[in-house]
Parts: sequence; structure tokens; C-alpha cells
Amino acid sequence: MTWTIYLSGEIHTDWRERIESGAAEAGLAVRFTAPVTHHEASDDAGVAILGAEAEKFWHDHKGAQVNAIRTRTLIGKADIVVVRFGEKYKQWNAAFDAGYAAALGKPLIVMHQDEHAHALKEVDAAALAVAKTPEQVVAILRYVIDGALEGYTDGKDAAR
Amino acid sequence: MTWTIYLSGEIHTDWRERIESGAAEAGLAVRFTAPVTHHEASDDAGVAILGAEAEKFWHDHKGAQVNAIRTRTLIGKADIVVVRFGEKYKQWNAAFDAGYAAALGKPLIVMHQDEHAHALKEVDAAALAVAKTPEQVVAILRYVIDGALEGYTDGKDAAR
Amino acid sequence: MTWTIYLSGEIHTDWRERIESGAAEAGLAVRFTAPVTHHEASDDAGVAILGAEAEKFWHDHKGAQVNAIRTRTLIGKADIVVVRFGEKYKQWNAAFDAGYAAALGKPLIVMHQDEHAHALKEVDAAALAVAKTPEQVVAILRYVIDGALEGYTDGKDAAR
Amino acid sequence: MTWTIYLSGEIHTDWRERIESGAAEAGLAVRFTAPVTHHEASDDAGVAILGAEAEKFWHDHKGAQVNAIRTRTLIGKADIVVVRFGEKYKQWNAAFDAGYAAALGKPLIVMHQDEHAHALKEVDAAALAVAKTPEQVVAILRYVIDGALEGYTDGKDAAR
Amino acid sequence: MTWTIYLSGEIHTDWRERIESGAAEAGLAVRFTAPVTHHEASDDAGVAILGAEAEKFWHDHKGAQVNAIRTRTLIGKADIVVVRFGEKYKQWNAAFDAGYAAALGKPLIVMHQDEHAHALKEVDAAALAVAKTPEQVVAILRYVIDGALEGYTDGKDAAR
Amino acid sequence: MTWTIYLSGEIHTDWRERIESGAAEAGLAVRFTAPVTHHEASDDAGVAILGAEAEKFWHDHKGAQVNAIRTRTLIGKADIVVVRFGEKYKQWNAAFDAGYAAALGKPLIVMHQDEHAHALKEVDAAALAVAKTPEQVVAILRYVIDGALEGYTDGKDAAR
Amino acid sequence: MTWTIYLSGEIHTDWRERIESGAAEAGLAVRFTAPVTHHEASDDAGVAILGAEAEKFWHDHKGAQVNAIRTRTLIGKADIVVVRFGEKYKQWNAAFDAGYAAALGKPLIVMHQDEHAHALKEVDAAALAVAKTPEQVVAILRYVIDGALEGYTDGKDAAR
Amino acid sequence: MTWTIYLSGEIHTDWRERIESGAAEAGLAVRFTAPVTHHEASDDAGVAILGAEAEKFWHDHKGAQVNAIRTRTLIGKADIVVVRFGEKYKQWNAAFDAGYAAALGKPLIVMHQDEHAHALKEVDAAALAVAKTPEQVVAILRYVIDGALEGYTDGKDAAR
Repeated sequence: MTWTIYLSGEIHTDWRERIESGAAEAGLAVRFTAPVTHHEASDDAGVAILGAEAEKFWHDHKGAQVNAIRTRTLIGKADIVVVRFGEKYKQWNAAFDAGYAAALGKPLIVMHQDEHAHALKEVDAAALAVAKTPEQVVAILRYVIDGALEGYTDGKDAAR
Repeated sequence: MTWTIYLSGEIHTDWRERIESGAAEAGLAVRFTAPVTHHEASDDAGVAILGAEAEKFWHDHKGAQVNAIRTRTLIGKADIVVVRFGEKYKQWNAAFDAGYAAALGKPLIVMHQDEHAHALKEVDAAALAVAKTPEQVVAILRYVIDGALEGYTDGKDAAR
Repeated sequence: MTWTIYLSGEIHTDWRERIESGAAEAGLAVRFTAPVTHHEASDDAGVAILGAEAEKFWHDHKGAQVNAIRTRTLIGKADIVVVRFGEKYKQWNAAFDAGYAAALGKPLIVMHQDEHAHALKEVDAAALAVAKTPEQVVAILRYVIDGALEGYTDGKDAAR
Repeated sequence: MTWTIYLSGEIHTDWRERIESGAAEAGLAVRFTAPVTHHEASDDAGVAILGAEAEKFWHDHKGAQVNAIRTRTLIGKADIVVVRFGEKYKQWNAAFDAGYAAALGKPLIVMHQDEHAHALKEVDAAALAVAKTPEQVVAILRYVIDGALEGYTDGKDAAR
Repeated sequence: MTWTIYLSGEIHTDWRERIESGAAEAGLAVRFTAPVTHHEASDDAGVAILGAEAEKFWHDHKGAQVNAIRTRTLIGKADIVVVRFGEKYKQWNAAFDAGYAAALGKPLIVMHQDEHAHALKEVDAAALAVAKTPEQVVAILRYVIDGALEGYTDGKDAAR
Repeated sequence: MTWTIYLSGEIHTDWRERIESGAAEAGLAVRFTAPVTHHEASDDAGVAILGAEAEKFWHDHKGAQVNAIRTRTLIGKADIVVVRFGEKYKQWNAAFDAGYAAALGKPLIVMHQDEHAHALKEVDAAALAVAKTPEQVVAILRYVIDGALEGYTDGKDAAR
Repeated sequence: MTWTIYLSGEIHTDWRERIESGAAEAGLAVRFTAPVTHHEASDDAGVAILGAEAEKFWHDHKGAQVNAIRTRTLIGKADIVVVRFGEKYKQWNAAFDAGYAAALGKPLIVMHQDEHAHALKEVDAAALAVAKTPEQVVAILRYVIDGALEGYTDGKDAAR
Repeated sequence: MTWTIYLSGEIHTDWRERIESGAAEAGLAVRFTAPVTHHEASDDAGVAILGAEAEKFWHDHKGAQVNAIRTRTLIGKADIVVVRFGEKYKQWNAAFDAGYAAALGKPLIVMHQDEHAHALKEVDAAALAVAKTPEQVVAILRYVIDGALEGYTDGKDAAR
């Protein structure tokens, strides 16, 4: 069985790549999905394809709806949803994805620094794990998927 | 039929009261629900009832989980979910509620000022209405529930 | 038990009133719901409440989304959905409602004249009854709800 | 992951072929499904297999129900549903499919010319994109599936 | 809380009346629903309301579909479904109702004599109780709803 | 896409083999599933594996429950459910399966001779096709899956 | 709105009465439901109503299935499920109810003493609150339902 | 079709291996999944990855939540859930899994010795088979998946 992991949230650091390369090194049977992380493409997809808008609101609306075709489909197909909150910006779409995933009953892993812990308490309370680093997320995936825990197992997996 | 409207989000202004009094004046058959809006009670509910925690994280976690008993139940029972984003704070729980409601298929009304429009575009794209004032929300409820639209109808409602 | 009947479709004749008065005469325990049938209000609800739009497309979009708050909620709560196709217009929203109701598993009664039978065959094929007159719909409701069939029963109802 | 796209609606132009060849050129991992588009076969499938009917209504009914075995199954399995409204005919089955897909929570792309925009406003309001040409649909699929947007990306896809 | 009990199946003996009067004597907070049990009305409802059919098959089809508006709605609303198989006839609609209720997760009570036990083993295996008499069904309802069991309790009910 | 077809009902004639060989000849991408059709194994599976029972009722119950592990799982995974009623026996499990499939929203094809039409009218009314021969079922599958209809198409399939 | 609270688990102490009287004193709009707590009636309900069994296993089976008519229905209707683990016995049915409620998405409150914390960690991990006393459960209900928290609020409730 | 079987419960004997090797010998198309059965890893997974906790309760909580990412996902994907109760310990997580699987409608096979039969009667009553040995479970799987029953069939399977 291949697990599908949706990586939602912050798009300005390399956290997705670190999780993906960590999982590859660990030889996990995983497939990662994500929103389009090209910032300008993500903003303009609606108008670039379907025609320009005079109003910024509708420019944004068209783009966000086209993005939703991808994000809601991929969240719906995911086995696990990881949501990363970065140091900056409002990141309301990340919190929206977390709520969306929670209502679908998807296991949720939230990743953020301590400084956001209080503001994120409702989101954390809906999660099954709260991590700080991509390496912790990889370790969780390795344990959850392969039953392997450093210092405890030799990597044999009861689920295989 | 009585409609149930969940009012999520910002707790420092009187927007809930303005919607509730507007709806009452309009004679709408509505019941409003909301999270606990007493800030300190909301923060401390977990430890005040179930015992103190040494770690702030678990203090928050206990409280947020007790709050979730209320909020997820009430969102699940709501006919319409209104989510208000204020001028300040991260308000990730508001965006989380919006995502949660969207995944349950609840009609969503989002309320915020123009300055947040771009940051909220994914949330707005999941909504059936984006309002700026409590009075607009009341007007939507009056139209949706009673079929009454100022300047158009005399208040007769086909749904009655 | 009160049955809830959603009356979708054509808004230019008195078919809803005829069903409602027929049901009242028959003493049926029913509640009727419907879209807002005031044509201009229905077209303009979005902009009248939330602000004007320069583009007709967004004018329509805003209105249709506000109408959807009402129509999808009421179809979701209905026990039976009746969809009437009139002599004129495209009436795509009526067919949309029929598909929406069918996917929710709602018992569907379609009402139209013979001339539209071929064009409506897919819609009819999803229905549990295809009627031509409001009086037939009333007779179906009377039979379904009260077990009463003219010429057969004396009105005693096993379901009471 | 292969995406499944259901192409509903108008059967007299080559829009399906244009989407399919465009997707093939773009190298998208997609599979297209559709109703039976052979008009006469679609009309007569019921009676040709299960026996003739004296009444046109039942001739149509039998055929429409056999078609429904295919269409409802394929819509249920689709990741995205595209519905095309052409210049002519009532096309109530297209609108029915749109409603059916919407109630199942499928992302909906509607394709039609401007002249039908007002009549289709309720259908458009349930869609995540409103396109005019098959090429726009291909561009949406390319963006949604591969994260590629002409003029913005070099085709690298975060979801791969 | 009032429990709703759907009484499906055989229509030629007084088993429904015996359950209803037994429940009334026991003072249970129950509401009973059932198909239309007037045999001729049930057979002819379709054609009597919607017009005669030359073919017996379509005569039956129209009637059965109109009956389904009632039966599927009421089974869907029931808390418990009781299905009675009598001594005679095929009674395939009773078995159909049992399967329908089972797939909806409704608690199922089956009632029949020993002679049918082998033929009904798959239906019985989906039931939570297999009874022989209406009085046993009343005793089950009295226990399930009021927690009262003759010879054991004095009728006090933990659920009240 | 491979379609999965569950073949429920009568086990004493070769109708399953005729459908399977017909589908193979037509080159359809189908997989057929069915209950265990070895009569004695089906009756005794429970006690043969889990230990004998003194009471015939529990002998049957154990077997029927073990069979249910297979049948309910396979019906749940089927794209189409075909239910065959033969000339003899009560066949309540066939009608139960039809009801079970209907409540899950599975497209239902019923197969029986004219003599049972009246007794099966409620089951037929829930079906999308009523056939008399295995060859008709194959023709339906060929049309539904491949879009091929003898005398109309050359076998090209719009869904491929 | 009246909240429905299912009280599952241990039946030998007065914890249900203490929660019910505490809720009554606090004036909460709640209705409590529970399994039948009369131990002997609960064990014998099946055979007392439906006939004796020679085998203890089937004696138990019949009773447990009759109890399930009540317990699964009431858990399904509950807004909140409270599960109490006592000092003695295996109490596997309590843990079963907790799992059943969790899979239905019901908010879960678990009540037990510290000594069982490790053995119950998976159950606790699915809960939104872990309490030790009936009084804590009442305080949670008072907070969740009325927004009242001793020492913080004056009992005014935003949800009213 | 490959069947997925989740093996829940007791982790101190070789029952999983015996089922797996038995299924392999029988050539069944099955895939087995299970919780992490390394006791210490299972207890410590949360803190080992996400950081130590001063309180034992939160140590356990973190671990149990990480385990839930695996167990709830795998139960949700299973075709059949087998739950084994051993001779010792509380095993509340096994009963929780049984309840969780039951609410999801998964076919449930329970395995335990006679001595626990009374304490497990509610769990057994939700099961489709109650076995005592791994070999019986293998025999059930062989019958359910391949239609093969020793002494009855020659291994031909109607479902193949």
C-alpha cells in the first residue's frame, strides 16, 4: 500500500523538499501531493486561463476557485494531511485546509514553531501530532507506515 | 422552520449582537449559536474543570478540546455558518471553522473588510456570500429565510 | 409527522398555489418550501445587498450564490422534491435542482406537458412519478402521506 | 495518480475530442469518461436490448434508465466533471448532470458561450470554473493536475 | 424522545394492529409507520392518479414507484424496522425492505414462523431480533424504549 | 477502468456462466463477483469452520453470517448489481440483496420471467433495467461499458 | 436546543444519577440516555422475550443483540457520549461504545481513575476530555452548553 | 481483487503470524495490516519523535495519538477486521477497535477463548463470526475469499 500525504501551507521555505527527501531516504511507500506552490501562478491561474478581471476581488476569486479544484480533490484523496504554519503572513488558507481535512476525518499533523502555539491551539487540538521540523514529520511517517522507530525497532514492520 | 445560524470568529466587537438584534427586528425565525466568547473562560476551561497543567501547551490543548465539544457540535447542527475576520490577530480558528463548515457542505457567509480580501481569497472562494457588515448579513438572512428584499418585495415569502 | 415538500422550477404560473391549496383542502400534514419566486428580487439579491457589480456575469453570480444558500438548504431538508418544467425558457436551474435532489436520494416528482417528454427523458428516468397537473401532484401527496386514494379508500391511513 | 474527468453535455460538436487531444499533447495523466454520444444508440438502447414499447414515453424511459447505469456510475467515479452547454436544444440532461455532480461534491467546470450566461447563472454559481473553449478546459486541467501555467511555470509540478 | 417504528411486510392479518395496541397499552412513546396496506389502492395508485397503462408491467411499475415515495421515505426516518413474513405469497417486497433497512444501518426485527427459518436465514442473520408473535415485538419495544422487562424490572427506565 | 458486477440470486442454473462467457466474448473489461454458489458449502460454512450447533436455527445463523462477510463486502464494492429470480423457491436472500444494493445507490439490473413480474414490482421499480435472459444482461453491459449497441454502433466507445 | 448525552459504561455506582442531578441543579437543557442498567434484565432480555437457549453463548448473544437495538440507536442520536470505566471488570462493552462513538464522530468524554490511564490511553486519545468525577462532567456540560464557567462567567451564554 | 484484513488486539502471542502463514499456504489474495506490535515503540513513539513529557499522561497521550494515525487509517481501509482478545490485560484498545470497525460497517471477526465469552457478549453480538483459533480465521478467509470449504468444495471459486 502506498500512502498519500498532502502537504498544505507555507510555500516560502523548503520544508516540502525536506520531507520528501527524508521519506525517499527512508524508503517509504509514499506519494506526496500539494497545492501549486508557484506563488504568481497560484495567484493568476484564474485570469491567465479564463480571462482578465477589472476587479481585484474577482481576479482573486477566479484564481482561488481554480486552485480549489486541485486542493480539495487532493485533500479528499489523502491518507494524511500535514499543515505547516510559517513565521509570516496570515496563512488563513492553511488553517482552512486543516479544518477541511478535520471535517473529512483525515489524520492531521500540524507543523509550527512554539511562538504560534497559543494562536493555533484549536488547530493543534484537532491534530494527532504537532511537530516543529520536517524531520519529525518524516519520523512520524516512518513509524506510522513502516512501524520503524529509531532506537527501538530494526525496521521490521507488522503491517507489511 | 427555524433556521440555525452559527456565528464563528472574532470576539472583540459587537457584530454578533448586531446580527442578532437585526434578525429580531426583522422577525426572522432564527436561532443563533456561537463559541464561548468569554476570552478567559475559553482559554482556561480545560484546566479550570479538569485540573491545572504545568505546561502551557497542555493547558491550551485541554481548553481547546473542551471548546471543540461545543463548536464542532454546533457547526454540525447549523444551517448556515457565518465567519467573521476582524482587524487584528491571527484568527486561525476562524479559518479552521470555515474549512470545517465547507467540508460538511454548510452554506458559508464570510465577513471581513477589503484589506483582508487577498489573504482570504481561498476562504472567500468557498463562501456563498462575502459581506462587510453585520447589516448585510441580516439582509441576506432576511432574503434567504423570508424571501424579503428591500425595495423589491413586500415581505411575502413563497417559502412560508 | 409533517412532510416537507420542495417546489422547484417554473415561476410564472400559479402551480405552487394550486398544489398548496389542494393540499390544504385535503388536510395534509405538509409544509411547502420553494426558491424565492419574485423574479427581480431573485436576479438582484446579490448586488442589492452586497454591492453593485460592473460586470453582468458577477451581478448574476452574486445573486445566484445568495439564492443557493436558500435553495440547497431547503432541498437538503425536503422529504420530496417536485420539479415543474413550464412551456418556455431554458429552465436549466430546474433540471439542476432535479439532479441535485436525485444525487441526495430525494424522491423526485417531475411535472411537465407531453411535448417536453423526450427532452426530459433523463430527468423523468430519475423520478418516481411524472405528472402533468398540480392536481395530480396533490393526489400523489394525499396517497403517499395519508394513504388515501379516491375511489379506493375511505381515507383511513395505516401510517397515522 | 491518474485523474478521471467526466465530460457531460452537448454531443454534436467535437469539443470532447479537442479536450482529449489537448490533454494528450500536454502529457496529462488523465482518463476521460462520457455518456454514450451516439445519438440513436442512446435513444434506443432500452428497447433494442430489452424489447420494443408501444408508448414513446416508455421507449424513452427504458433507454434513459439504461443510460443512467453508465452516466451515474461514471459521474460517481469522476474526480472532475465538465459540463458543456451548446447553442441549441434544451440540454436538460446536461443541467441535471451538473446538479447531480454538485450534490456529490465533485469539482465542476461549466463550458458555454456568453449568450447563455444569464440562463445558466445557478449552474455557473455551483461551478469552480466557467470556460468558453475546450482549450481553456485543457489549460485548467494542465494547471490543476501538473501545476503548469503558460508564461509562469516551466512545468515542474509540486504534486508529482 | 418518541421512537419511530416502521412495520413492513405481510398485509393480510392484524399483526400491525396487535403491535400498535400492545404498545399503546404499555404506554410506549412510539409512532408507527407502514406502507399503504389497502391492497387494491397499493396496486392501482400509479394509474389511478397518473393515467391508465395498456401494459400490465407499466401499470405495476407506476404504482410501485408511487409506493416507493412513501416506503423509502418512511424507512429512512424509522428508528427500528420490523419486517413480517406471513405464511403465503412471495413477499419479495418484505425481503427488499429488510435489505434496504440493513444497508441504512437500521436495527431490524424480523417476524416469522419456524417453517420459514431456513429460507430466511440471510435475512435473520442481518436482524437484531427474530420474533414469532406481535406480542414479542411489543415486549422488545417495551424493553428497548422503556427498559422494562416483565419479571425483572418495575418499569423504571434509565433512559427517561 | 474495470467494472465490477455482482451476480446475486438463483444458483441452480447456468445464468452466471452465460453472462461471464458472453462478456468474455465481447471483450468487456469486467470482473464478476458472486456469493458462494456451492449449496451445501453455503449452508454449512458456519458450523464446518466454527463448530457444530445442536439447534438448526443457530446452524443456519452461523452460516448466514459467514456468508454475509463475503456478500456484503462484494456488493459494497460492485459497480452494478444483477439480481436473478428463478422459477422456484422463496429466494428472499435475492430480494434482500436487491434492497441492500438499492439503499447503497448501486445501479440494479433485475432478471426474471414475466410470471413473477407482479410479485416483483417493488423490486423492479428500484431497478434501472429488467431483463429476461443472460444475453440481455450482456448486451446491457456491452452498451454501458463499451457504448456498443448491435445495429447502431461499430463498437467505438466514447468512454475509452 | 436540548442536548442529548449518552452515558455509557459502568453500572454499579451512582455516577449517572450524580451527573443527572448535577445537570438538573445547573438548569441545563439536556436529556440523558443510557443502556438498560438493570444487570439481570440486561443479561436475560433476549431469552426472556424470545425464548430460552440451551447454550449460554446464544443466551448471551440474543440478549446482547436486543440491547444493541437500544444502545446503537441512542449513541447514534447522542450529541455527546460519556464513557465511564469503573474499578472492576473487563468493561469491554464500554470500550466498544467509545470506539463506536468515535467512528461516528461523536464528541467523547471519558471518565476513569488515574490507575487505568495507561491501559486506556488509546481510548483517552480519541476523547475531547478525560474526567475523574461526575462533577467534572457536569462542569464540562455546563460550560459546553451554557458557556458558564465557575469563577469566570456570570452564566450569560453567547449561544442563547 | 486483493482483500485487506486488519488484525487488531493482543500482541504477545504469534496469532498474527499463524494467520498470515496459513493464508499464504492457502494462496489467498490477501494483504494483512496491523498496529505497530513492538510494545515499547508503541508506548514511546510520541515522545521519542516529538519530545519528552514530564507527565506520564501526556507521554501516553502523544504516543496513542501517533498510533491512531496508523490504526484508524488502516481500519478505514480494511475489508475485514479481526480482533483478538488474549488471556491477560484489559485490552480496551482491542474493544475500542471493534466498536470503531462496527460503526464503519466493517465485517468483524472476533477471536477469544470461551472464558471471555460473557464479558465479550456485546462485542461478539456485533461480529459476523466468533473464532477461537487462528486456523479458524484462516478457514473463514479461505471460504469468504475463495469460496473453498474443506470437505465440500474442490477450491473452485464463483467469485474468481
